[in-house]
Amino acid sequence: MKEWKKNIRKVVPYVPGEQPKQQDIIKLNTNENPYPPSPSVYEAMKRIDPGRMRLYPDPSCRMLVNGLASYHGLDAGQIFVGVGSDDVLAMAFMTFFNSEKPILFPDITYSFYQVWADLLKIPFKTPALDEDFQIRAEDYYRENGGVIFPNPNAPTGIARPLDFIRDILDHNQDVIVVVDEAYIDFGGETALPLLKEYENLLVVRTYSKSRSMAGMRIGYAMGNPELIQALNDVKYSYNSYTMDQTALELGTAALLDENYFQSVLRKIIATRQEAAERLTQMGFRWLDSSANFIFAAHPSCDGGKLFQYLRDHGVYVRYFNSPRIDQYLRITIGTDEEMKRLYQVLESALYGNI
Amino acid sequence: MKEWKKNIRKVVPYVPGEQPKQQDIIKLNTNENPYPPSPSVYEAMKRIDPGRMRLYPDPSCRMLVNGLASYHGLDAGQIFVGVGSDDVLAMAFMTFFNSEKPILFPDITYSFYQVWADLLKIPFKTPALDEDFQIRAEDYYRENGGVIFPNPNAPTGIARPLDFIRDILDHNQDVIVVVDEAYIDFGGETALPLLKEYENLLVVRTYSKSRSMAGMRIGYAMGNPELIQALNDVKYSYNSYTMDQTALELGTAALLDENYFQSVLRKIIATRQEAAERLTQMGFRWLDSSANFIFAAHPSCDGGKLFQYLRDHGVYVRYFNSPRIDQYLRITIGTDEEMKRLYQVLESALYGNI
Repeated sequence: MKEWKKNIRKVVPYVPGEQPKQQDIIKLNTNENPYPPSPSVYEAMKRIDPGRMRLYPDPSCRMLVNGLASYHGLDAGQIFVGVGSDDVLAMAFMTFFNSEKPILFPDITYSFYQVWADLLKIPFKTPALDEDFQIRAEDYYRENGGVIFPNPNAPTGIARPLDFIRDILDHNQDVIVVVDEAYIDFGGETALPLLKEYENLLVVRTYSKSRSMAGMRIGYAMGNPELIQALNDVKYSYNSYTMDQTALELGTAALLDENYFQSVLRKIIATRQEAAERLTQMGFRWLDSSANFIFAAHPSCDGGKLFQYLRDHGVYVRYFNSPRIDQYLRITIGTDEEMKRLYQVLESALYGNI
Repeated sequence: MKEWKKNIRKVVPYVPGEQPKQQDIIKLNTNENPYPPSPSVYEAMKRIDPGRMRLYPDPSCRMLVNGLASYHGLDAGQIFVGVGSDDVLAMAFMTFFNSEKPILFPDITYSFYQVWADLLKIPFKTPALDEDFQIRAEDYYRENGGVIFPNPNAPTGIARPLDFIRDILDHNQDVIVVVDEAYIDFGGETALPLLKEYENLLVVRTYSKSRSMAGMRIGYAMGNPELIQALNDVKYSYNSYTMDQTALELGTAALLDENYFQSVLRKIIATRQEAAERLTQMGFRWLDSSANFIFAAHPSCDGGKLFQYLRDHGVYVRYFNSPRIDQYLRITIGTDEEMKRLYQVLESALYGNI
């Protein structure tokens, strides 16, 4: 081995869901929103002046921060924005998880948590979900260097109530607790009301799911101004200008049309409801989802084979070949037409073709 | 101090150049390009479909990577792209500087190098520039954990020839050598031809200066496929989807109009030439710049006071209150009209008003 190769950091990279190139597939594998962004985003796009691009964007992202503060009824000093919630979460790991004690997150959860902990050399423990795939509060009573979990959890879709979050916070006053609310707009109770009571709470959101803007890379965190300042200090030590001018302008515009936003959420929730019924009819067991996906397994049809059959028939879902969940498919809620195609292919698989 | 505060990473953040809000100021403080992006960027902007934004961007950024590979006559496997060259450089620090030995960079250089080394806990040494503000090759012959320097250097603007880069590479076969070419399009010899000979060389570029796209946050690195793969592995462990769809499309389009690009560079170089003459007439000493800025000091007028006088008269330049350079102003090359206003205010300062 050449000497210079020894200095290269060795990592096991996260593998993102496939982004297939074919046009005619049904893409239910990365929890994207099947509906386009708000009309206010289309309007804002027309107004963007490419001539402005010669200048650096505002490093404090004031326009977007102010828009989000006003939307959530918070102060601007309580908002941090980044390049998708992955950027925000990675910054939170770097900023808040500097203890020698292990941080805690569930064994079955967003797989990036472990990737960041490995990359940043943060010790961690992963308490197991219970037999119903629920997070157990008691597992988070032990001494630790920080806590993070999604609510609703991924890939299960299961949301826990506000009392559960409060219980975890009450038992973790000495560390920072991050609640990743990537999917909260599709159901579940937000932890935002707890910000007033717990200054060690950080709530993280994304534009990638409910706001139909995965392609623009916008995420944000809400917390007490001291936490937000610490995130900004680390951000300024890493890359001062992360959010490009287009993301700032379109991200702000996206907040303007609440009616459109709510109508998209209602449609996805209704389609999820129907999906649960159809999957039940086909004999699937599924977890009660508060997200824009549903996690389902069939008692008589192998998960891996079903995944492959769907794929061969142009329907992409997500499959995790991991202990306890290797019989499940994570199916993003698409349009009603896309879901119809999914049901057809599932039926064809179950009626003897697999 | 509350217990949870102890886990917060303490950093001394980089302070970016001011982005003043007033409209009527002359902004020569952050090395932005005074001319707009290529007409091909305006055209591409019109074609962007906000409906596409509901989907994640291609995590491998193939469109932009292919465009850059073709532009530079390299293979796609030799190109890594990121959110501005700051993102690319931060990834390079994280990926390549994992030795216990100190990395080396000049004492007077891009101030972010030290910020990243501090943030990532990388040991470093900063050999002093010589009395003419030049990097001394001999200082880089000692054992080290990696080497990084800009060529042309900032904030001096001084470029070193290809033989100098080759000398440093010959003496550093066991570590990774990063040449930061943020300003190379404005003069100086690129290290790109050396990629064929040195597999431990990484060359970094940005769209923020020569391509008038600071607002879009696009940077890239070129090197042997093994280095690029290592950067991508770390990127996928940090944030898989860093470049948004708009940045990918506009960044690719920007490469299409070489005539426009070259004409912008010629204009800035001509204005820099005139600035050198005007500053000489006013009694300034200045360093021979190959960048889109000029680093100048006046023997009889204090740098800090001159900076403040310019600012009070609506002309923003950059001033570093640091040893050896605290008499210098770093003046970005603007349009001829902006520079005329600069000369007027400088003359007024020198003729007794300061």
